[in-house]
Amino acid sequence: MTKWVYSFGDGVAEGTREMRNLLGGKGANLAEMASIGLPVPPGFTITTEICSWYYSHGERYPDDLTDQVEAALLAIEKSVGAKFGDSANPLLVSVRSGARVSMPGMMDTVLNLGLNDETVKGLAEGSGDERFAWDSYRRFIQMYGDVVLGVAHHLFEEALENLKAEKGVTLDTELDADDWRELVKLYKQEVQNALGKPFPQDPKEQLWGAISAVFGSWKIDRARTYRRLHNIPEDWGTAVNVQAMVFGNMGETSATGVAFTRDPSTGENETYGEFLINAQGEDVVAGIRTPHHLTKAARENGKCDKVSMEEAMPEVYQELSRVFARLEQHYCDMQDIEFTIQNGKLWMLQTRSGKRTAKAALKIAVDMVSEGLISEEEAVMRVDPAALDQLLHPTLDPKAPRNVIATGLPASPGAASGGVAFTADVAEARAKEGEAVILVRVETSPEDIHGMHAARGILTARGGMTSHAAVVARGMGRPCVSGAGSIRVDVKAGKMYVGDHTLNEGDVITIDGSTGEVMLGEVPTTKAELAGDFAQLMIWADRHRTMAVRTNADTPFDTQTARDFGAEGIGLCRTEHMFFDGDRITAVRHMILSDSEEGRKQALAKLLPYQRDDFIEIFRIMRGLPVTIRLLDPPLHEFLPREEKDFAAVAKAMGVNAEHLRRRAEELTESNPMLGHRGCRLGIAYPEIYEMQARAIFEAAVIVAAEKGETITPEIMVPLVATEIELGILRKRIEDVAENVFSEKGSRLEYMIGTMIELPRATLIADRIAQKADFFSFGTNDLTQTTFGISRDDAGSFLPLYVEKGVLTRDPFVSIDRDGVGALMALGTERGRIGKSGLKVGICGEHGGDPDSIHFCQSLGLDYVSCSPFRVPIARLAAAQAALSGKS
Amino acid sequence: MTKWVYSFGDGVAEGTREMRNLLGGKGANLAEMASIGLPVPPGFTITTEICSWYYSHGERYPDDLTDQVEAALLAIEKSVGAKFGDSANPLLVSVRSGARVSMPGMMDTVLNLGLNDETVKGLAEGSGDERFAWDSYRRFIQMYGDVVLGVAHHLFEEALENLKAEKGVTLDTELDADDWRELVKLYKQEVQNALGKPFPQDPKEQLWGAISAVFGSWKIDRARTYRRLHNIPEDWGTAVNVQAMVFGNMGETSATGVAFTRDPSTGENETYGEFLINAQGEDVVAGIRTPHHLTKAARENGKCDKVSMEEAMPEVYQELSRVFARLEQHYCDMQDIEFTIQNGKLWMLQTRSGKRTAKAALKIAVDMVSEGLISEEEAVMRVDPAALDQLLHPTLDPKAPRNVIATGLPASPGAASGGVAFTADVAEARAKEGEAVILVRVETSPEDIHGMHAARGILTARGGMTSHAAVVARGMGRPCVSGAGSIRVDVKAGKMYVGDHTLNEGDVITIDGSTGEVMLGEVPTTKAELAGDFAQLMIWADRHRTMAVRTNADTPFDTQTARDFGAEGIGLCRTEHMFFDGDRITAVRHMILSDSEEGRKQALAKLLPYQRDDFIEIFRIMRGLPVTIRLLDPPLHEFLPREEKDFAAVAKAMGVNAEHLRRRAEELTESNPMLGHRGCRLGIAYPEIYEMQARAIFEAAVIVAAEKGETITPEIMVPLVATEIELGILRKRIEDVAENVFSEKGSRLEYMIGTMIELPRATLIADRIAQKADFFSFGTNDLTQTTFGISRDDAGSFLPLYVEKGVLTRDPFVSIDRDGVGALMALGTERGRIGKSGLKVGICGEHGGDPDSIHFCQSLGLDYVSCSPFRVPIARLAAAQAALSGKS
Repeated sequence: MTKWVYSFGDGVAEGTREMRNLLGGKGANLAEMASIGLPVPPGFTITTEICSWYYSHGERYPDDLTDQVEAALLAIEKSVGAKFGDSANPLLVSVRSGARVSMPGMMDTVLNLGLNDETVKGLAEGSGDERFAWDSYRRFIQMYGDVVLGVAHHLFEEALENLKAEKGVTLDTELDADDWRELVKLYKQEVQNALGKPFPQDPKEQLWGAISAVFGSWKIDRARTYRRLHNIPEDWGTAVNVQAMVFGNMGETSATGVAFTRDPSTGENETYGEFLINAQGEDVVAGIRTPHHLTKAARENGKCDKVSMEEAMPEVYQELSRVFARLEQHYCDMQDIEFTIQNGKLWMLQTRSGKRTAKAALKIAVDMVSEGLISEEEAVMRVDPAALDQLLHPTLDPKAPRNVIATGLPASPGAASGGVAFTADVAEARAKEGEAVILVRVETSPEDIHGMHAARGILTARGGMTSHAAVVARGMGRPCVSGAGSIRVDVKAGKMYVGDHTLNEGDVITIDGSTGEVMLGEVPTTKAELAGDFAQLMIWADRHRTMAVRTNADTPFDTQTARDFGAEGIGLCRTEHMFFDGDRITAVRHMILSDSEEGRKQALAKLLPYQRDDFIEIFRIMRGLPVTIRLLDPPLHEFLPREEKDFAAVAKAMGVNAEHLRRRAEELTESNPMLGHRGCRLGIAYPEIYEMQARAIFEAAVIVAAEKGETITPEIMVPLVATEIELGILRKRIEDVAENVFSEKGSRLEYMIGTMIELPRATLIADRIAQKADFFSFGTNDLTQTTFGISRDDAGSFLPLYVEKGVLTRDPFVSIDRDGVGALMALGTERGRIGKSGLKVGICGEHGGDPDSIHFCQSLGLDYVSCSPFRVPIARLAAAQAALSGKS
Repeated sequence: MTKWVYSFGDGVAEGTREMRNLLGGKGANLAEMASIGLPVPPGFTITTEICSWYYSHGERYPDDLTDQVEAALLAIEKSVGAKFGDSANPLLVSVRSGARVSMPGMMDTVLNLGLNDETVKGLAEGSGDERFAWDSYRRFIQMYGDVVLGVAHHLFEEALENLKAEKGVTLDTELDADDWRELVKLYKQEVQNALGKPFPQDPKEQLWGAISAVFGSWKIDRARTYRRLHNIPEDWGTAVNVQAMVFGNMGETSATGVAFTRDPSTGENETYGEFLINAQGEDVVAGIRTPHHLTKAARENGKCDKVSMEEAMPEVYQELSRVFARLEQHYCDMQDIEFTIQNGKLWMLQTRSGKRTAKAALKIAVDMVSEGLISEEEAVMRVDPAALDQLLHPTLDPKAPRNVIATGLPASPGAASGGVAFTADVAEARAKEGEAVILVRVETSPEDIHGMHAARGILTARGGMTSHAAVVARGMGRPCVSGAGSIRVDVKAGKMYVGDHTLNEGDVITIDGSTGEVMLGEVPTTKAELAGDFAQLMIWADRHRTMAVRTNADTPFDTQTARDFGAEGIGLCRTEHMFFDGDRITAVRHMILSDSEEGRKQALAKLLPYQRDDFIEIFRIMRGLPVTIRLLDPPLHEFLPREEKDFAAVAKAMGVNAEHLRRRAEELTESNPMLGHRGCRLGIAYPEIYEMQARAIFEAAVIVAAEKGETITPEIMVPLVATEIELGILRKRIEDVAENVFSEKGSRLEYMIGTMIELPRATLIADRIAQKADFFSFGTNDLTQTTFGISRDDAGSFLPLYVEKGVLTRDPFVSIDRDGVGALMALGTERGRIGKSGLKVGICGEHGGDPDSIHFCQSLGLDYVSCSPFRVPIARLAAAQAALSGKS
């Protein structure tokens, strides 16, 4: 015989907290609390297996379930000393759903079940409070009618309002026992009207009705959608918890409350919670009455004159405190609990791990290690890496008022305020005068980099989570809201329009890159704190991590930021951003627009010293840590002028006419630049470009190695390789440059030549490519674009819809698509290491800073992840968690 | 002891024609001819293994090679009755290279080897012709000096010219023995000057010098490049053939010639060739003297007064004819042979399969089956499918003069002449007036379709082999030259510029889409012949084919063409082309530019009858053959107006202002449309579009099924699927539409819903997709773009360079890249059939008409290939060959 029902209460329980899959989270914890001797109202849990059975047998129950439920009910009756349906001394129960994980959308709770026209009288007599009994009955009809019978709840609310109007009162508390009795009549009539049959009077029928309603709610649309979005399997099912009612609304010695064992906002080790005397749980939540503080300290701190539980019920409070200590000791985590006091007796109704802010999570984890409650490893596992983002950036003061005028995508975390500027030049100019600036563009391009640097934050009207603005902003650690579609920017007029608002250049806005909100005016922010608990957790994380964490950094500034955040090297130094600075862009354009190799070489000779100086500075900062430099990647037209005046300037500098340049620029235009003449294809077509870059790298490395006496080992990375021949040709050329530089300088050093793996084809022939490569680095941005056939710049028009409709569970540009992109990464890694045993493999796409993707990289056996500077701590923590998960 | 040397001659040989890998093509055939009793000058072949040995041992020979060569030389001496290096009766030999496949770039031939200052006298005495002997000696020095010693050949030519000038003569024949003797002296001096040492007098030294020169030429740059381009492995190596000299230049009873056993141009079973009396082989090739015809008939036919071989040497001619018959009987193929007649005796110097035109290949294959020489299967294997293209399109009269003014890519085969038109509208207008038109555009877009239809041929300045122009032109069977970069079109001025030429609208040009040439004026063309031999071969091909051949056809016209070419169904009917016709485009634009679902539905309602009529017509033509219809694929902005006036027209039709439309159009613009909001993403975002299309398909199918009493089974294809959920959602919607239509019409029919597999991700999760699909069709164009990360529209800027530099051996848009795209196809097919056993899988990319790709598809076990109408016969033949190859 299968055991379908698990009883608990009176210090014993058939279940344990380990049985979460069978009993659901709530049921398992109720059993656990009971078995460690905490005061839990007796009850039983019907297992999740019944849910599966129910659906696989045409919504029926197994024959032996009734007997098991009856037996468990009998146990409750014995324990409580009351009888279900007994008109003199009725047992009332609550019925609650409870899946493995908390799941909004499903049926939640029915209280006071067992009441009917007869038992209500018994309750009145037993409690000595007629008003309480009829109030309980009407509450039951309302709840049961709504969630079990499907009677629209507004019907009940209207009936109540009508009654109050009729009686000339405004508060529920002003109604007396007779009023409630009358309301019960009205409620029953509503049920009769709606269903064409009376409200069920048989408590057993009520019970089975509620049980079926819980199982039925597993399959309603909202629950299905939630499961699909959260990857919860359909076959998990829910359990049902039936438990003796206890009443917090039986007078002044009764109460109900919710509490956290520590402050979920700050993490301080202080009891935190609220309670209400003479109330049921729903009253605390409903907000009709303002709950009181639990502790005297909290009351005084909150300048509140309502008596605290510590003061009002000192003995029960002491007992509650002991329960908290016992729970933390037992669960080794901060708990979120519900309790009820009935006539001075404390009952525990629920306990679970409490949700907390990132700051609290950090503090609690670190504190619990010092308290000896958990180990270092557990502390590392306890903090959600993604949540760290909140700590690394300024955040909006949660109490400050905000006037949200638009919402876009939360493209780069943190908050910032400043006057709007509509061009990069204006942003830079105003910033130089000390003004805080928010750069607002329709979308950004590489030409805007200097303005993005100068700005405190970036706002765009178009573009997704991985648009240029988003990627660059994250790299710089600037807050960014992208794709705020309701914004219209008129650059010429120097105005932006949002709804009814018109803003002029300089008008102040605030953006929150963690939520995507755009606010009018300045909203105060609070700074990040990176020492103390944060630093401690990072030390522990690094101790358990096996993958290295590098950074994607292109400028000395970013490089320094990343070092401060603990980056162990540069995994991706994009050389193209360097091309936009100051005078260089003219030389770059000269190079591109030259018709001859000779012309290109002249222009490149001008660029060489700039590039060399960039690398010198980066090598100095990284002090011998590995630096992976990617050779030029974007199509050349990205560097071309867009404005008429820029054409004129370049034409003048080159001594040719602007018309000629414009024609050449047009020739370079591409239909799909992402799939165009870029990456190593440029290196093949224009050998002189990569040769200049390689020379700049080697010269810089030799210089820094000499001055510091440190070993500099540059890692040169060739982008967009599709065939081993491309890499073979370019490798040879780079080696030749190295030999030339070494013999010119009379000094040699070690170096590596590797490649980005960012095309499906490269993963397929990774064994052959590996024979020409010293390392691989997965460029998962482009690999996602090509594997999925989705341009990240254009994805904004359908990707949100895809996520919303559940076609994709996540944006594949945020978290690695394991089935597609991930499968190719697995193939590429495996074949790469077949081609070259022990090949170093890393990742330098945006995904390198995403915790879920980092877990995946650990499972592939990658050597390192590389991410933008501000995500380095997140990656360190996620990598530690991945390593620890892998161990167990 | 390894056998390195194989002798032949006197009716016996140690080698056979099967030993091509060891002896090279020439050596194997010489051995074969000798062993079947044909008169072959005795000689020996040094095997290709020596070539490998030579390179793997620091360019040395194995010790036992010398003895084996000496022994073989002795055998020649015995056979000929002369002695190598003997001053009285010297043996002279030729030394020739000979790899497995003929390989230009390598050393070819040294004749008369063995001559020196002594043996030349013996030759003079023995032949009784002093002039002949000294002429032979000077030829030998010249050849040997050039190809073995590396003395610049112009030095010899200049010496000869100087001597003739000095003697006051113009023709070589005017020089006498003394003159040649003097020239020998001068030649030897040139060698001494160039090398600082004398011309080698020791025949053995000469022989080993020539042998080493042959082996050395295996590794010269030209040979390496040729091998890389033709996928010939480096380790094959070449053989060396050493053979007794025979002389065609020993007077009027001597001659030399080349011949084909059938006419290589027409395939007629007539001896075809040329010969020269009193000449050596090089004279025939050099073109100094005009060779004579072999047969009397050919002479008369060519209106030539020079005596034919048949007339001049009737007995030897008869012998030669018998040899031809014997060779064809033996090799069962048309042979390309070289022969020499020395003093009335016929010697065969070479035989090999003759190269031939497509027309000849066809005729010879069919004729040989009737002659009983080969089987049907062999005939099918004999014709190169790619060459059939020549037969299916009009070709330029090869004899007509042509003035080539530009060259582009041979984008769609066939030749056409007409007046140039620079817009689709002009092209259409002029065509309506009966003018032949060539549409000339910078590049074409879907808006140009009507102009492309109206034109005889298409010429573009930009775009590759798979640009829009190329793809559409091939589909339509219009000749097309794309990417003719030297052309500049000024649409406004109505002029085009090519080099120094300026052409006005209406000026006549001719394009050859098979060569990429653009010619001024009209060049006469010859029509295609599709009956007779062609039809016969197709019957045989179909008999042996296992894959079905379908066509990609969007219009009733294309559909009919394809049926005429033998298509067994439509594998890809693109519905988007239908959207451009006439009034429809306005409704399409209305639909796209609507802000609401309601507006879109109104516009779609207008489109429905058009679409239904299109499908009705196609179903009628296909008469129950399968028709795969792809739902809308391209991004919506492709349908938007580009010109100001078009915006105005649409705005008027919609009753909105043009500015609004322009803004909406701008919003739809994409950075990478290829990876943008297209394919099934449109179907997910705008359900009403696919619903309209599905309705049109089902309504049309029901109507045609009723009127013809035939079974119509539409196959609806969903493009660009990346996840199984996309297909699941759309499948459900299409099924709903089907049910609605069936119940409205009171009639049901079978249908299939399948998907294009054109994204790498789709191949990786093909098992899951297959569970929602009734069939797969590989869209290899897009699959190539995404796997390689190459946009076919932009590839023109580097793909030709890639092929030139050997990074890619072939354009992956022409022939499937087996290592990358092919690997994913294999995966997709295998996993697809795991997901659904026996899943029907086809291909509908451009590759479906490429013979090499068709072979690959056969190896994957595909059910069908689909290609443009004009490639259907090619595909039928290639599929037959693939099936036959697979069998053996």
